[in-house]
Amino acid sequence: MSAPARPLATAAVIAVGSELLGSTRLDTNSLFLADRLSTLGIQLRTKTVVGDDRRGLAEVFKAALSRADLVILTGGLGPTDDDLTREVVAEVLGLELREDPAIIEQIQERFGRRNLRMPDVNRRQAMVPRGATVLDNPRGTAPGLLIEHGGQMIVLLPGPPREMQPMFEGVCARALAPRAGNFRVHKATLFVAGRGESHVEEIAQPIYSRWTSETPPIETTILAMPGQVELHLSVRAEAGVPAEQRLRRAHDELRMALGEDVFSTDGRSMEEVVGTRLRDRGLTIAAAESCTGGLLLSRLTDIAGSSEYVAGGVVVYSNQLKTGLAGVPADLIQAHGAVSEPVAAALADGIRERTGASIALGITGIAGPGGGTPQKPVGTVAIAFSSGQFGSRVRTFSFFGGRPQVKFQATQTALDMVRRALK
Amino acid sequence: MSAPARPLATAAVIAVGSELLGSTRLDTNSLFLADRLSTLGIQLRTKTVVGDDRRGLAEVFKAALSRADLVILTGGLGPTDDDLTREVVAEVLGLELREDPAIIEQIQERFGRRNLRMPDVNRRQAMVPRGATVLDNPRGTAPGLLIEHGGQMIVLLPGPPREMQPMFEGVCARALAPRAGNFRVHKATLFVAGRGESHVEEIAQPIYSRWTSETPPIETTILAMPGQVELHLSVRAEAGVPAEQRLRRAHDELRMALGEDVFSTDGRSMEEVVGTRLRDRGLTIAAAESCTGGLLLSRLTDIAGSSEYVAGGVVVYSNQLKTGLAGVPADLIQAHGAVSEPVAAALADGIRERTGASIALGITGIAGPGGGTPQKPVGTVAIAFSSGQFGSRVRTFSFFGGRPQVKFQATQTALDMVRRALK
Repeated sequence: MSAPARPLATAAVIAVGSELLGSTRLDTNSLFLADRLSTLGIQLRTKTVVGDDRRGLAEVFKAALSRADLVILTGGLGPTDDDLTREVVAEVLGLELREDPAIIEQIQERFGRRNLRMPDVNRRQAMVPRGATVLDNPRGTAPGLLIEHGGQMIVLLPGPPREMQPMFEGVCARALAPRAGNFRVHKATLFVAGRGESHVEEIAQPIYSRWTSETPPIETTILAMPGQVELHLSVRAEAGVPAEQRLRRAHDELRMALGEDVFSTDGRSMEEVVGTRLRDRGLTIAAAESCTGGLLLSRLTDIAGSSEYVAGGVVVYSNQLKTGLAGVPADLIQAHGAVSEPVAAALADGIRERTGASIALGITGIAGPGGGTPQKPVGTVAIAFSSGQFGSRVRTFSFFGGRPQVKFQATQTALDMVRRALK
Repeated sequence: MSAPARPLATAAVIAVGSELLGSTRLDTNSLFLADRLSTLGIQLRTKTVVGDDRRGLAEVFKAALSRADLVILTGGLGPTDDDLTREVVAEVLGLELREDPAIIEQIQERFGRRNLRMPDVNRRQAMVPRGATVLDNPRGTAPGLLIEHGGQMIVLLPGPPREMQPMFEGVCARALAPRAGNFRVHKATLFVAGRGESHVEEIAQPIYSRWTSETPPIETTILAMPGQVELHLSVRAEAGVPAEQRLRRAHDELRMALGEDVFSTDGRSMEEVVGTRLRDRGLTIAAAESCTGGLLLSRLTDIAGSSEYVAGGVVVYSNQLKTGLAGVPADLIQAHGAVSEPVAAALADGIRERTGASIALGITGIAGPGGGTPQKPVGTVAIAFSSGQFGSRVRTFSFFGGRPQVKFQATQTALDMVRRALK
């Protein structure tokens, strides 16, 4: 039972509550916990959600004990019959539960402050496994518990984020940091545009595969979504080991190999990167959007402070409005079709002239699901970039996926054209 | 190995991917899966997230097999070294993996359609455990797999929701429904706009609390987000029990009590509801957006077929463009300020005139985080509705939250003005 305390290298998180197994609610506490754990160099191995079910919780808790030094449970500390976390944890660990009079007093006081008497059911919340440390909860009735057991550590936290978070901050500082050992995790990211996952992998894999055999190894994860491929690098190393410097060099090496296609090295989104470049150079931007329907301008204006560099623009679905609002000659549309490079270029030039912006984008395409033809299938999008200082260009792309994916990729590619022009 | 197939009463879901253990991403696939499983009366016992880690995945998969009839894994089917799901599942079950030439052909064809050659790494995606059924993936390169093993069922699905969802719908119909028991869960939803959570609760709670004591009980969950409150009703009953009819009556009762504020009774979004009303009446819509920066038009154009009723519009951040693109008189802005009801009304009227749309919206406000004043704090938004047939109106709102929440609530409220006008 009293095995020597071992350093906390790995963790498992368990969220308890049947409502978290339905189709409407997610356990979001684990995002906060993951962040704090990774800072301490504690590797999160699994996150599990289990219902208010005695047998299920016992199984999940035992499994977590078998794979992690630290097990954190959130939820199931309330006063009702459904709240089983305390009992099940005590039972699995073979610890007797006793009522703690100090907790009863605190809960009574809490109710008293609102001129209520403590309901009898709340006595459950005062049950403490032998040897556990009680964690005060200034924001609710459910105290947390910290148990040292057989060299492992188990932390029970209330479910509501505003009760859980400050309690866990305290646990981190007092109990986890001293035991987290000397290890810390360093992280770096690279976001890539204009290249698919497999092609990024082909370039990156021969490079990062070398690092996995180094000591300590650098781990690389590739994450693909429409219009964006992300590389996440991380290294777990002891204090004193120059891991951060090595990670920096590795990051640089990948960045060199991927070249211009890397658009972000610090987690910032494309719209943020483009916004910064525009602001730093004192430029303004406008857009005339057909198939993207306003998404490009909406993404640009998601960034705080974007009113400094976003002039504005138009959304022109109909041919008539392409002419009326963006000045595209009707005979140009007649000659080439609305989805064509000449029309995209005329949209960009037209809106640049009408807004007086330094840079303008024109987008016209087929977002689907209808409207495709054999010559111009769904996903065909012509994108034009227009400027005085940086020249003009226009290209046609074939994007994949459904309507939202086509819309997103078109805006991502258009923004990327701006980024590359302002390199 | 060939134990008799058992009825599928319980399920465990595993999401595979190290990115899902970090502090930025949640596994959202499990919400969809939970919904479909509950419809079939299959009880979801646990949801687990595990990283791209061979040993961890094997442990988690074994534990899931020990507690559920059906194990569903999402993610880890990509072409890279990180993608371990196929291999680990085959290993734990003791099944040999073989390359399936038909899958190779399909992936090659997929790349070929975009004039790309298949990278060699994609061959991994063609590896199939002996006896498994391959699930086609028309929306991506990763095929899914269905394995019947020792009376249990194991389903491997790709991680991206748009690939996973249609694939799982197919699995439900063909493989799960015939093996699920006699219980079914019936569900109904009500979406409300223009009323906060506590006000919805005040009206709804006295009604739905009666139903929890009925047999079988109808359960009601209230879910609030900025701009929208959702009521989710469900009842679990054996086939033959007239539960669906009772649920329908309960749903109607709540709908009557909440009246006009109910905007959707079938899960459709506000933009879809508004779009349908516009199309059914042969109307068109336009917008002049300032603080929402294109989000309103982007939401409207997220709906397939919206080109029938979305004329277009303008995004006008600067005062100069409010005048230039939407025809707002400069002296009106001078007199009332850009964020004011007269300017909102002029934006709506101006864009309606310039686009010839039947209905137009004008939005001007302070999305934050900067730009607020004591008189007009962040979240202040003036919204105008303009039409011939349905009259015109303008109102000022105070929205809460950060920039994205303010943008969303402003567009939700503007769309809701259209919905109420077209009642």
